[in-house]
Amino acid sequence: MTKSSDNQSINTSCEACEFDSPIVSEQDLKSFLSANAEWELITDPSVRKIKKRYRFRNFAEAVVFTNSVAELAEEHGHHPIITTEWGAVTLEWWSHKISNLHSLDLELAQKCDAILA
Amino acid sequence: MTKSSDNQSINTSCEACEFDSPIVSEQDLKSFLSANAEWELITDPSVRKIKKRYRFRNFAEAVVFTNSVAELAEEHGHHPIITTEWGAVTLEWWSHKISNLHSLDLELAQKCDAILA
Repeated sequence: MTKSSDNQSINTSCEACEFDSPIVSEQDLKSFLSANAEWELITDPSVRKIKKRYRFRNFAEAVVFTNSVAELAEEHGHHPIITTEWGAVTLEWWSHKISNLHSLDLELAQKCDAILA
Repeated sequence: MTKSSDNQSINTSCEACEFDSPIVSEQDLKSFLSANAEWELITDPSVRKIKKRYRFRNFAEAVVFTNSVAELAEEHGHHPIITTEWGAVTLEWWSHKISNLHSLDLELAQKCDAILA
């Protein structure tokens, strides 16, 4: 995983959001998926994404998590798809411009896990 | 459309959330879909839902709408699937226990439209 941004720095331009951004290395991706077994690699059908479903006790807790993820996304100028429902939130991270995964996607996936740690 | 609840009354028990809730009548559904052309009937594959995608100018506006819908859902004790992404929010309303549409789903769909009116 490369250059991690800390939470204090607000990125208005996101490095994963350029057409020529580097796709995450197979090795970094393999390490991430092996260390974070609840994150799943998906292809949709030609776009690689990582996806995870988080369980909550009710709707209100799911919405609180949704807002924490939204805040993190805005801080980094990079945005997942967030699906909020009763008792669950599903996140999908990928980099739109490259139709693939950037190292920032893996980094932000881990930051989302850390919100609940 | 039947008995509309007003926003002041908080329903902790939702009438659409019982196993024996009445499925919305074909006539009410047809009227709803004809009067609200942006709401689409979907089956998933045996569950009937209504679904609509709302467009926004950015992520922050999508999140504001997500929170308004979440608040409305909590007020009524009845919860859609809310998919939030950069520039869009997609809502799916249905009644889980009956795997079908209850009149409350149509009512809350219209209340969601009214949030942006």
